[in-house]
Amino acid sequence: MDEPVLLTGAGGRVGQAILRHSGDRFEWRLLDREPLGAEKRPDGVGEDDVYITDITDEEAVEAAMDGVYAVIHLAGDPRPEAPWDSVLRNNIDGTHSIFQAAVDAGVEKFAFASSNHAVGAYETPDRKPDLYRPEDEFRLDGDELPRPSNLYGVSKATGEVLGRYYHDHHGISVVNVRIGNLTEGHPPIDYERGQAMWLSYRDCAHLFERCVVADYDYEIVYGISDNDRKYYSIDRAREVLGYDPVDNSAEFED
Amino acid sequence: MDEPVLLTGAGGRVGQAILRHSGDRFEWRLLDREPLGAEKRPDGVGEDDVYITDITDEEAVEAAMDGVYAVIHLAGDPRPEAPWDSVLRNNIDGTHSIFQAAVDAGVEKFAFASSNHAVGAYETPDRKPDLYRPEDEFRLDGDELPRPSNLYGVSKATGEVLGRYYHDHHGISVVNVRIGNLTEGHPPIDYERGQAMWLSYRDCAHLFERCVVADYDYEIVYGISDNDRKYYSIDRAREVLGYDPVDNSAEFED
Repeated sequence: MDEPVLLTGAGGRVGQAILRHSGDRFEWRLLDREPLGAEKRPDGVGEDDVYITDITDEEAVEAAMDGVYAVIHLAGDPRPEAPWDSVLRNNIDGTHSIFQAAVDAGVEKFAFASSNHAVGAYETPDRKPDLYRPEDEFRLDGDELPRPSNLYGVSKATGEVLGRYYHDHHGISVVNVRIGNLTEGHPPIDYERGQAMWLSYRDCAHLFERCVVADYDYEIVYGISDNDRKYYSIDRAREVLGYDPVDNSAEFED
Repeated sequence: MDEPVLLTGAGGRVGQAILRHSGDRFEWRLLDREPLGAEKRPDGVGEDDVYITDITDEEAVEAAMDGVYAVIHLAGDPRPEAPWDSVLRNNIDGTHSIFQAAVDAGVEKFAFASSNHAVGAYETPDRKPDLYRPEDEFRLDGDELPRPSNLYGVSKATGEVLGRYYHDHHGISVVNVRIGNLTEGHPPIDYERGQAMWLSYRDCAHLFERCVVADYDYEIVYGISDNDRKYYSIDRAREVLGYDPVDNSAEFED
């Protein structure tokens, strides 16, 4: 496609992972609340392609959305312990504002950064720590109802429901990526849960690239590398998006 | 139990159906944004038992919640066509505020008025109008992911997710009742959809009474009468809550 891809929350960790590994794949338009220095922008993305705004500012979002082909929506309060007032405003109201602007502008595809925290309460005491281990067969596949770990997780589950609404009523393709534990270079050390839901930077970039390129209607997929340890299925991401991860947290274990 | 049951949105249609048919079953405490005249209160419920407040007023809600055994939470913007700003504030933020006050006060049970609009988009063109007819076997049973009809439905699905969070993390029993089409006296006329999801006033009151009396963890049930036409299963409400409806929209058809 020739039209740009709008990346909200471009300066955050997920946004930087995407730009570092897929910076040359699309014509990017970047949005963040804070200015993005040259070190945070891929080559060829100038200051004119950067929109500095709060995502609840409807007019500013409308301007950023003009002529956009696809949105990767990462902006929001990323803290699992974020208080309700913040996730209500930044994650719930903010995501509504981005969806509404996207359908108003005729955007075709929308990838939403959901989170493992939308389903963290499936990690019940009777399942832990077994579900983090390679031999355990418990899996979530995206068909299950949310069970949030925290109010941040509630806000992410709400973003998924907003996507369902906008897909059903406005036809926009929507994929929700329940991002695992994104760390650079290697998986979390001495942390089985983090290893079970590890997502490497390059697998993260590849996955969101597939969200722009693939054809789909409405999907909920898990965003983790191809770890031996896992309790999230990546089958749906492989089938629908053509996700083909290269990393595995087991390769970093002693 | 001797402790009161708090009914929010007591002056609305669902609240009045409950009070008219179950007004003598519990010690009621009523909450509404508007004053409730004597004709809207059951015998024995005086003005001292009525709290006039907006549900986003945390201090007022805290006072109303003191010593309460169970909450039936109906308050919110009831319009399917309600705009986002209203459902964000009244239905999403308001429901969070009621849940938080309930767990702070040690409330044991929480019945949330969800809606058929949380799943209205399952009524796809290829299923309509067959799914409204007695011979059709398509059923929703509460395990399915939300597919809201509108932003009001998004807000109701969010209330369900808030309930999941508060149940998992604070132990409060939560039941979400996806209320169908509540009309007094008889089902909607010449409206197959309304007949398929008809809920009579007395069945509505009985169902919420069971939500106060029965034991459960976290549930999503459908609130309709025992209609011949239906695409919502009431099996779960029967099994878990002991719901035993007496009405059927078919008895009113010509």
